[in-house]
Amino acid sequence: MAGQPVDAGHGTWAERAARMALSCAVDGGDPDGADLVRRLGPEGAWARVQAGVLGEPLARRAATTDVEVVQRLASRGSVRFVIPGDEEWPAGLDDLEQATPIQRRGGVPFGLWLRGPGHLARLAARSVAVVGSRASTAYGTGFATDLAAELAEAGVTVVSGMAFGIDTAAHRGALAVGGPTVGVVANGVDVAYPPGNARLFEAVAQDHLLVSELPPGAHPTRIRFLARNRLIAALSGGTVVVEAALRSGARNTAGWALECQRPLMAVPGSVHSRASAAPHLMIRNGQAMLVSSAAEVLELVSGMGQHLLVPEHGASRVTDTMSDDQLAVFEAVPARRRVGAGDIALVAGVSMPVCLAALNALADRGLVEASDRGWRALPVQALSQGAP
Amino acid sequence: MAGQPVDAGHGTWAERAARMALSCAVDGGDPDGADLVRRLGPEGAWARVQAGVLGEPLARRAATTDVEVVQRLASRGSVRFVIPGDEEWPAGLDDLEQATPIQRRGGVPFGLWLRGPGHLARLAARSVAVVGSRASTAYGTGFATDLAAELAEAGVTVVSGMAFGIDTAAHRGALAVGGPTVGVVANGVDVAYPPGNARLFEAVAQDHLLVSELPPGAHPTRIRFLARNRLIAALSGGTVVVEAALRSGARNTAGWALECQRPLMAVPGSVHSRASAAPHLMIRNGQAMLVSSAAEVLELVSGMGQHLLVPEHGASRVTDTMSDDQLAVFEAVPARRRVGAGDIALVAGVSMPVCLAALNALADRGLVEASDRGWRALPVQALSQGAP
Repeated sequence: MAGQPVDAGHGTWAERAARMALSCAVDGGDPDGADLVRRLGPEGAWARVQAGVLGEPLARRAATTDVEVVQRLASRGSVRFVIPGDEEWPAGLDDLEQATPIQRRGGVPFGLWLRGPGHLARLAARSVAVVGSRASTAYGTGFATDLAAELAEAGVTVVSGMAFGIDTAAHRGALAVGGPTVGVVANGVDVAYPPGNARLFEAVAQDHLLVSELPPGAHPTRIRFLARNRLIAALSGGTVVVEAALRSGARNTAGWALECQRPLMAVPGSVHSRASAAPHLMIRNGQAMLVSSAAEVLELVSGMGQHLLVPEHGASRVTDTMSDDQLAVFEAVPARRRVGAGDIALVAGVSMPVCLAALNALADRGLVEASDRGWRALPVQALSQGAP
Repeated sequence: MAGQPVDAGHGTWAERAARMALSCAVDGGDPDGADLVRRLGPEGAWARVQAGVLGEPLARRAATTDVEVVQRLASRGSVRFVIPGDEEWPAGLDDLEQATPIQRRGGVPFGLWLRGPGHLARLAARSVAVVGSRASTAYGTGFATDLAAELAEAGVTVVSGMAFGIDTAAHRGALAVGGPTVGVVANGVDVAYPPGNARLFEAVAQDHLLVSELPPGAHPTRIRFLARNRLIAALSGGTVVVEAALRSGARNTAGWALECQRPLMAVPGSVHSRASAAPHLMIRNGQAMLVSSAAEVLELVSGMGQHLLVPEHGASRVTDTMSDDQLAVFEAVPARRRVGAGDIALVAGVSMPVCLAALNALADRGLVEASDRGWRALPVQALSQGAP
């Protein structure tokens, strides 16, 4: 696994047991715990925790940790434990190793407790986090439901936190089309929380996947929610904030998406809605891209050659389907540097509105890309990838 | 006037009459006409137009142009004519000399016909264009009205195009607080268009100012609307697009704001509203800044030291009113280059959310600025400008 040293002892019972014990005794996302594992390996880290290097209270908790009891509880609940290096371990989580802690939480989890038939690494490989306020509006939940359904229909896993509001809407949207969804929780994957979401919890566990760094039986705390948010962001190919107040957990998740170098997206709404205040601020600050449809989300999170609006009739060259104006504009956009639309219009010999319309059409097809520094052409080989 | 050669003959009756005649015979925004004036001066240009250099139809129109008749019509309607170099001529219009034509319209107008007690150069010096669709929603017209009222209360002139929908809402919002507004029309300033807006037309003419490059008696055409849009953008310190469909005149005005290097702003709304489609696209493309309040508009269009949210109690140093975290973050933001929030948090020794909250608070006060390349500190002298 990239960035995660796989030593000779990987997958031994001793390593697995040490990681399991760490996940029971050390609260998820304790950056000091993650640092111990990085420096000493899981077994060494566990020995130091038992010796009190993370403090007396943790040492006492470590002394009462019985991995075999936890394992019995896990297998009774059909809960499995995966660790770095396992085939099901999602590569994206390793990005947490470089990320700066936020609110004293951070680091690669010791392991993950999973419940459900889904394969985590495969689900995470094409995934988008859809997150937002518990106090969502009908506008926000409606959008989150539709967005999740369209993403799931496109085969993209919808990752969220199983909370009320936007999270619930996102999971339900994916479930409605039978599409993939992953619930990342701040408690044991056998503990339905919030209790009002018990049916959703069981539905995700039965057909998809619940994920937690906390062992079976664990209950959520404020700090566990903060730690959980980093997993949502790191597991996903990008994060969409649908609605969030200025102070909200969704902004914490957004911070993690940025820390993990994932595209951060935000949905506009009424300027009068407090639930759209954080999305608007993030767009205004240049932290998040404005997205208003599933297609726009897919464009931002897809790898090269995926989800580009390729010609429907299978034209062999991208330029075949361009109008004369689009072709003139396309040829005027340099690949190695960014230039303003005015300069492009000048070179292409078209008016500014024709130029902007052509640029937008080309951008929709993934052929050019805009930033506040101007426009540039994207590599064309990305587009012929799907063609014969 | 910057960029506008003021020759010995400036203000002579001959120059004024030539510009007046050009404004009558050559349709506003004909880039060839503007080019003739730039190369030959107004009298030379007028002689060439009469000689048929812009085509036989224009030469015929020139032959029937009687400046004295037009002048009589103008003075009967209390309409005055101002030309480049006049004290009332707004400097911003000269930026049109460099701007690339859009849809075959462009160039500095030959002169402007004005009606109303307002002083154009002074009104334009602190002004914002508020534009958008005729087919606006209640959300858009409500926002445009409130925005215009707040701008006008802050002493900023609200410039718009007197059309139904957003334009009307903008003018009405300014009028409601007795604040300055300028109506830029695509017809004679004595011709109430659209007829349904006759009362608004008279209200603006009576207390404020109507502006047109077309002579008294002229009626609007499609091409005149396009030409008019460049005047709205060039007259104003920035343009706010409140609502607009993907194909709309407001996008043409937005293109002119970009061509004239003015801040372009757009208002978010429901993703389901077609009227918010163009604002969302312009924000997404990085062409427009998202704005959700008058305060945000004022920050973007104000000169250094104006409209910054300065401490209310007159603290002598900007750092006096900062929390410890804000101070730590403020001192960690470099002025000469842009860095990511993660690096700033690291240097400041604060968590990422604390860092982001502090950065946003500092940005609200105009002390730091974000782009997609990161954050940088803004010059502090701009802030002490208002202090003793």
